[in-house]
Amino acid sequence: MNASGVFGFTESSKDRLSSARCGIVTTKHGSFRTPAFMPVGTQASVKGLLPEQVESTGSEIILANTYHLHLRPGEATVKEMGGLHSFMNWSGPILTDSGGFQVWSLSDLRKIDESGVTFKSHIDGSKKRLDPQIAMQIQKDLGSDIIMSFDECMPYPIDRTSAEQSLARTHAWEKETLRYHPQDGRALFAIIQGGVFEDLRRKSAEFLLELPFDGFAMGGLFIGEIRDDSMAMLELVGGMVPSEFPRYVMGVGTPLEILDCVARGWDMFDCVLPTRNGRHGTAMTMSGPMNLKNAGYKLDSSPIEEGCGCLACTSYSRSYLRHLIVAKEVLGLTLVSHHNLSFMQRLMTQTRQSIEDSSFLAFRNQIAEFWTRKK
Amino acid sequence: MNASGVFGFTESSKDRLSSARCGIVTTKHGSFRTPAFMPVGTQASVKGLLPEQVESTGSEIILANTYHLHLRPGEATVKEMGGLHSFMNWSGPILTDSGGFQVWSLSDLRKIDESGVTFKSHIDGSKKRLDPQIAMQIQKDLGSDIIMSFDECMPYPIDRTSAEQSLARTHAWEKETLRYHPQDGRALFAIIQGGVFEDLRRKSAEFLLELPFDGFAMGGLFIGEIRDDSMAMLELVGGMVPSEFPRYVMGVGTPLEILDCVARGWDMFDCVLPTRNGRHGTAMTMSGPMNLKNAGYKLDSSPIEEGCGCLACTSYSRSYLRHLIVAKEVLGLTLVSHHNLSFMQRLMTQTRQSIEDSSFLAFRNQIAEFWTRKK
Repeated sequence: MNASGVFGFTESSKDRLSSARCGIVTTKHGSFRTPAFMPVGTQASVKGLLPEQVESTGSEIILANTYHLHLRPGEATVKEMGGLHSFMNWSGPILTDSGGFQVWSLSDLRKIDESGVTFKSHIDGSKKRLDPQIAMQIQKDLGSDIIMSFDECMPYPIDRTSAEQSLARTHAWEKETLRYHPQDGRALFAIIQGGVFEDLRRKSAEFLLELPFDGFAMGGLFIGEIRDDSMAMLELVGGMVPSEFPRYVMGVGTPLEILDCVARGWDMFDCVLPTRNGRHGTAMTMSGPMNLKNAGYKLDSSPIEEGCGCLACTSYSRSYLRHLIVAKEVLGLTLVSHHNLSFMQRLMTQTRQSIEDSSFLAFRNQIAEFWTRKK
Repeated sequence: MNASGVFGFTESSKDRLSSARCGIVTTKHGSFRTPAFMPVGTQASVKGLLPEQVESTGSEIILANTYHLHLRPGEATVKEMGGLHSFMNWSGPILTDSGGFQVWSLSDLRKIDESGVTFKSHIDGSKKRLDPQIAMQIQKDLGSDIIMSFDECMPYPIDRTSAEQSLARTHAWEKETLRYHPQDGRALFAIIQGGVFEDLRRKSAEFLLELPFDGFAMGGLFIGEIRDDSMAMLELVGGMVPSEFPRYVMGVGTPLEILDCVARGWDMFDCVLPTRNGRHGTAMTMSGPMNLKNAGYKLDSSPIEEGCGCLACTSYSRSYLRHLIVAKEVLGLTLVSHHNLSFMQRLMTQTRQSIEDSSFLAFRNQIAEFWTRKK
């Protein structure tokens, strides 16, 4: 699992009433505490924020998108510039996805064959290809600390036969990615698929757990299915992945969704929600979302959230932030995104604390009063 | 001129070979050195930058637009929030324009009568009015340190008769604004008009210099006329305004234009160019403009400009900045704007230094090698 001794995960404490746990992941570029929320830096930039501002929210690891960076500027450029850490001036851990999800969600005319996928770039229409070897090479060139295996994200809904075929392809591809494991302290995570078919998810977990991956992720959830089904899959698989591995739910989520994943033993999360909300003027708070465009904030001199240490709350009124958002000033995006990421990291800090003092479920229920699970 | 003793200008040194001079302007919110470049915070935000980032470029005073803030969020909101300084978290001096220029350039269906101008908001089409009393009240409510008198910006080209009529109106309006001078240490500057008619400019300067304004601005230049004509007007009027007053050229300009104004005795400048260039990926340097979208920078690991202390140059390559601009990432705008404002302030620092050691014209000629006057 940990060929060079550099990548590792240690579970440090466990909740008594749920499967929630705290831990620490070590990588070539430092460690991060779990449960961890990873801000998304799609194109080698967390939208609207300097890396030092991202760090000041308490973020310890960020995610970058292989698909986007492959298309622009291209991994050759990033490699030539010394890798992602140097390119974007982020010295902490970086996780890259495999590009499979974006091929599925963003590109036109994708054609899947047994050995990979051919697609048209959503930027310039040029023909591109991803397969296990290419996806690994791109991520290695980017200099990722945590590399994701190459999978096919099956759509929802999907019929049983197609799901089985997709899963077989995913398993063959993922097994192949292990041939390209850098074995230099960088980690390679498997992605468990299977839609909401319980037996397929179980089969996928069993198959992948037999292979020497460094961590295990849940893919293909929160893409339209009922949340009870998502949670059932997370509960099932969370219980199957041994405690010595970090467990990562991809693309999740809202505050309550994350806590409900944590309750089922999951450790790592990423989502564009905090920065997307920032762009749209929705501030995230312990009392739920706050639409800053609301006319009620026009003369409101209070900060978004009392006690928050973010750039917005320490110096600006809701009135000013509302003005920036309404006037489409870029600074509004920066300030509200910084608040939202700070909020997410406060949420994770309190989550870890509540696990340590066994008050996790009470904390989860407190959040559930203000945040609904389905967005 | 300086009713409360708070606002003031002191000339501290003069070039031997030109009319260039250094000085210091004191206001209720601190002082700034001249020649001074004022970043434009149109809607109470210098686009894409936090106030502390604006300050870190060496900027000592910023400008905000009366027209924009009157329409949105409205001066009542800003006043209720404690004034512009508190609203936008900028503790240094703020100059506001009078709104006249934007009425002329942005709004539809403006109708000028003898006492003011009625126009439609470019945001929601609502009917608005500006006149000397209203323009003064808005700026007082905003809490501006340097208030601009209410003028009519005559278009270019304009026939002689219309120019005379416009100038008569401007003079009547400006005289009226003095009735609303706050007399509390805030300054009120006159705006000298007259197009490129030498005798009208002279007449305008003579008329306004007789009135108790605290400083004198040049309006209605750089709006399409030949640069030689602009400079002739600046030379004429620069020589007429006594040395105890700060002299301000509105809406100027490029590096060389500013230096050519400085050579004619002008002290204060504002322009959206550094942030607009930032948005479009054009970096400003001592060796001229640099279009970061240029493919030649794709693999360029050097900073925009060696030795520059801005956020971009201290941590990012041209390659990364090019990527951000091409990928339309907001951070590109922030970083290049921070560079451009830092460049402008370095330019002003070197200008002041060159005036002090009598090498100003040599410095001006050095800049002229890389920057042309007409944009």
